[in-house]
Amino acid sequence: MDQIYFAADILGTVAFAISGVLVAMEKRLDLFGVGIIALVTAIGGGTLRDMLTGSTPVTWTTTPIYMYVILGAVLFAILFQSRLRFLRTSLFLFDTIGIGLYTMVGIEKGVEAGLEPLICITLGTITASFGGVLRDILCNEIPVIFRKEIYATACILGGLGYFLLLKTPIPQAYAYLSGVALVIGIRLLAVRYGIALPDIYRKHIG
Amino acid sequence: MDQIYFAADILGTVAFAISGVLVAMEKRLDLFGVGIIALVTAIGGGTLRDMLTGSTPVTWTTTPIYMYVILGAVLFAILFQSRLRFLRTSLFLFDTIGIGLYTMVGIEKGVEAGLEPLICITLGTITASFGGVLRDILCNEIPVIFRKEIYATACILGGLGYFLLLKTPIPQAYAYLSGVALVIGIRLLAVRYGIALPDIYRKHIG
Amino acid sequence: MDQIYFAADILGTVAFAISGVLVAMEKRLDLFGVGIIALVTAIGGGTLRDMLTGSTPVTWTTTPIYMYVILGAVLFAILFQSRLRFLRTSLFLFDTIGIGLYTMVGIEKGVEAGLEPLICITLGTITASFGGVLRDILCNEIPVIFRKEIYATACILGGLGYFLLLKTPIPQAYAYLSGVALVIGIRLLAVRYGIALPDIYRKHIG
Repeated sequence: MDQIYFAADILGTVAFAISGVLVAMEKRLDLFGVGIIALVTAIGGGTLRDMLTGSTPVTWTTTPIYMYVILGAVLFAILFQSRLRFLRTSLFLFDTIGIGLYTMVGIEKGVEAGLEPLICITLGTITASFGGVLRDILCNEIPVIFRKEIYATACILGGLGYFLLLKTPIPQAYAYLSGVALVIGIRLLAVRYGIALPDIYRKHIG
Repeated sequence: MDQIYFAADILGTVAFAISGVLVAMEKRLDLFGVGIIALVTAIGGGTLRDMLTGSTPVTWTTTPIYMYVILGAVLFAILFQSRLRFLRTSLFLFDTIGIGLYTMVGIEKGVEAGLEPLICITLGTITASFGGVLRDILCNEIPVIFRKEIYATACILGGLGYFLLLKTPIPQAYAYLSGVALVIGIRLLAVRYGIALPDIYRKHIG
Repeated sequence: MDQIYFAADILGTVAFAISGVLVAMEKRLDLFGVGIIALVTAIGGGTLRDMLTGSTPVTWTTTPIYMYVILGAVLFAILFQSRLRFLRTSLFLFDTIGIGLYTMVGIEKGVEAGLEPLICITLGTITASFGGVLRDILCNEIPVIFRKEIYATACILGGLGYFLLLKTPIPQAYAYLSGVALVIGIRLLAVRYGIALPDIYRKHIG
């Protein structure tokens, strides 16, 4: 089980680091700017989660492998930039894979800390979305979380699905992977079919 | 005494959650956007205070009642939006009640942690104003704290008043409630009579 | 050795507080706005570093001297504003002195916490640059860290120099002061001679 958690964490780090490089390169930032956006995107969500739960020193300060993985992903993305040139599509895919993995990583940290499911899902959503929010604020884009498409809602629904599956006889590892797949699937379907949240404003009929 | 602290905390949460809903609905955010702005406004200040003082896991992760109160306030504000339609006035009132309550909640946490009055007042001001600052940044408004009207200054003066009252024979509960009333009263009077801080810039006469 | 650390910390606090006053006064903020920008610039970087490493309550809450130093620097800068009126030059100098001192303050905190050199340098860079980033975001300037000139790169190179010097027989106090001088010198030279990072974008020839 621990290997699955670790693999999800590293894969999410790679996916978010590449999504950060893609946004930063579209903004024509210099080498340092690209590196810092990749770093902030990849570790921003987990850092806030660790600071909220008091799990300090935060993970990346004591486990330097995250920094090396991010540096490697930045080099890779810069060297193969021409292969990633359909930026919007690549960005969407890497970002979606990232939120799927990070939602479950964050939920699991909450479960380990003995927190309630509602709080765990909130922490999972923060882990998944805060890095992208920082990336978009620093690059002067509208934060993903406030765009029309379903985003954090996918994290919340995937997290709910995971806690429901835990109540069935399904082994935990499968429930975990199903949670990841749920978040990714819901976001892909929502964007593909233009699904949005219900309107809350009173219509003026006249 | 503990009930007074708890009541102030819950009432402040409700007031700030509603102020968040009002700003977010004026910006026509969707249901999720309204919810997240309400959440950030209501818990932003206390979360930063808890992280600064190392009081982690932060309060809302271990005391889920705050989340339920915020969700309830969001539902209430959306359902009764037509009653709250004089938005600017309602917003000003809820925001002012919120800073009065949260200033004293923050000061009391500092006192419990054995910190100096100057630091306690700083923590109270952070607790009261940081949620509103986040709300305004996310909604692309000028942060309240930088507007012409007296805002954080009301928190600072109310906090000073509280520490002065503690040196008199007045019971602590009355001093606490007087602190809340001072912050609210100073802000109401400052806005009503257009009181601002003294000008620090050298005039050019010519 | 402890006196050197403490002196560096206080001098950095003064330098950054004054740089905050200068930016805030150029934006014509009121007295409270100037004070809060000075505060955020001077304590922002160290506060984030302390929260990341779990060194809480953060330094300024338990050591009020930082607050008094900042208040003093604000008063000084406002009273002698006409002497500081060549704002851009003064700002650049105070900011550069600030990052030199804070880089080494942050690195030393990481070393004390037993963290790896790579992580210590990251913490030093955060300590040095985050206050200025907050200052610039709140004053609606492009964050220093993203400007063309070398900035965080100076912190990183100065930090690397310090760890290399530690492997020589040079006494630690000299290595520390050399680290400060390296950061300041690299930034001064980079700005003087217009040195920037290498271009990472493929040229389109044709």
